[in-house]
Amino acid sequence: MDHDAIREIHQLKHRYARTLDTKKWGEFAQTMVPEATAIYGEYLRFDSRDSFVSFLENTFSIHVITQHHCSQPEIDVDGDRATGIWLLADTTIIPDDGLMLRGSAYYHDRYVRDDHGRWRISYTSFERTWESAVDLKDIPSFRLAFNRWDQLEPPASA
Amino acid sequence: MDHDAIREIHQLKHRYARTLDTKKWGEFAQTMVPEATAIYGEYLRFDSRDSFVSFLENTFSIHVITQHHCSQPEIDVDGDRATGIWLLADTTIIPDDGLMLRGSAYYHDRYVRDDHGRWRISYTSFERTWESAVDLKDIPSFRLAFNRWDQLEPPASA
Amino acid sequence: MDHDAIREIHQLKHRYARTLDTKKWGEFAQTMVPEATAIYGEYLRFDSRDSFVSFLENTFSIHVITQHHCSQPEIDVDGDRATGIWLLADTTIIPDDGLMLRGSAYYHDRYVRDDHGRWRISYTSFERTWESAVDLKDIPSFRLAFNRWDQLEPPASA
Repeated sequence: MDHDAIREIHQLKHRYARTLDTKKWGEFAQTMVPEATAIYGEYLRFDSRDSFVSFLENTFSIHVITQHHCSQPEIDVDGDRATGIWLLADTTIIPDDGLMLRGSAYYHDRYVRDDHGRWRISYTSFERTWESAVDLKDIPSFRLAFNRWDQLEPPASA
Repeated sequence: MDHDAIREIHQLKHRYARTLDTKKWGEFAQTMVPEATAIYGEYLRFDSRDSFVSFLENTFSIHVITQHHCSQPEIDVDGDRATGIWLLADTTIIPDDGLMLRGSAYYHDRYVRDDHGRWRISYTSFERTWESAVDLKDIPSFRLAFNRWDQLEPPASA
Repeated sequence: MDHDAIREIHQLKHRYARTLDTKKWGEFAQTMVPEATAIYGEYLRFDSRDSFVSFLENTFSIHVITQHHCSQPEIDVDGDRATGIWLLADTTIIPDDGLMLRGSAYYHDRYVRDDHGRWRISYTSFERTWESAVDLKDIPSFRLAFNRWDQLEPPASA
């Protein structure tokens, strides 16, 4: 069993999730090879890393709070290629729209080891199991006790 | 440290959780030896894999959405036997009853390596820490934006 | 790659989270060296294990239900020292105050291997991304179907 590869792929996906949820798009892009492809949900397909990262950067702007909790990896390594299944337990809050989403999905990823020996994502997709939506007006006391992105938002008068 | 064993036990439990939540009962049963025993909650005891899987298949039918999020493994390997503690952070939604449950528990598992070198679960139990319940009628806007099992449900007129 | 070290640090943090959420303060303290330091949130600093554990023991008494879900480790080992980043996906319920909190944060830890070869936490901190708060009076049906700590509470007349 290639324990180095498995460990590196784990840390790669953990960095993917952390930089996605902290909106560090430069570091996030580095988890994928430039020619990476992605399928997002049922309909959206991306044929390059740049188009995929641009989409996510627009979708998950500072007005959207996300928790992409990635766990339960099942990794299969074959030389310089590997596949992985992960549970995604996700929460999304859009304060301006008063909307909160929660759900489960499974990532199906492919990974490659490049000439420098680094593992990176070459393909990612996820298949949703369920997703629930709640209008926060039903929970009038709902408030963000802390929101890192608040401080980054330009003032309304700007 | 037997890294192969630990890695295989991790992936075994991850497959257990994934096939449980996606209701792939045949694949789910294969994570356990036939003579596996289980304690479920405070009162339910099962003395074979078949009786345990039947119970779960009935309890978690397509009318019940589950997220068994298994993580934080503490695995102890001793030759062809091993024990494991896991956090279970679980969410259950029963749309027809308008009920949502969330909670924490700890799995206490035992594993065996069979003659083919495969690790499987020989005993599983969990000890709950807490569980909360909410009637979804308190949150009128609650809706399932997606539910894989909806499509599988026979029409009401069938 | 020092797989023994990485595995031991993982299990160390998993034990940290489990004993924190099950309020096993003696076992919890053993995950840290006596001279461990901690930064908790934005303002609280602790310069010894004893002061940190005392604070947590008071804060997370049997009147507070916690789920510190620690995952997505990124561990970097350098001899007998190591650093780690972890996602904290936390839920806190304070039944007496009718309050529920949920959020994301990232732990930034340091670890040391002591003379007996055991890894322990020498420094821990976390940086919050977001935290939401809900008054449970908005969800009148909210109830604890199970709460391990209830049984441990002294009767009101005591």
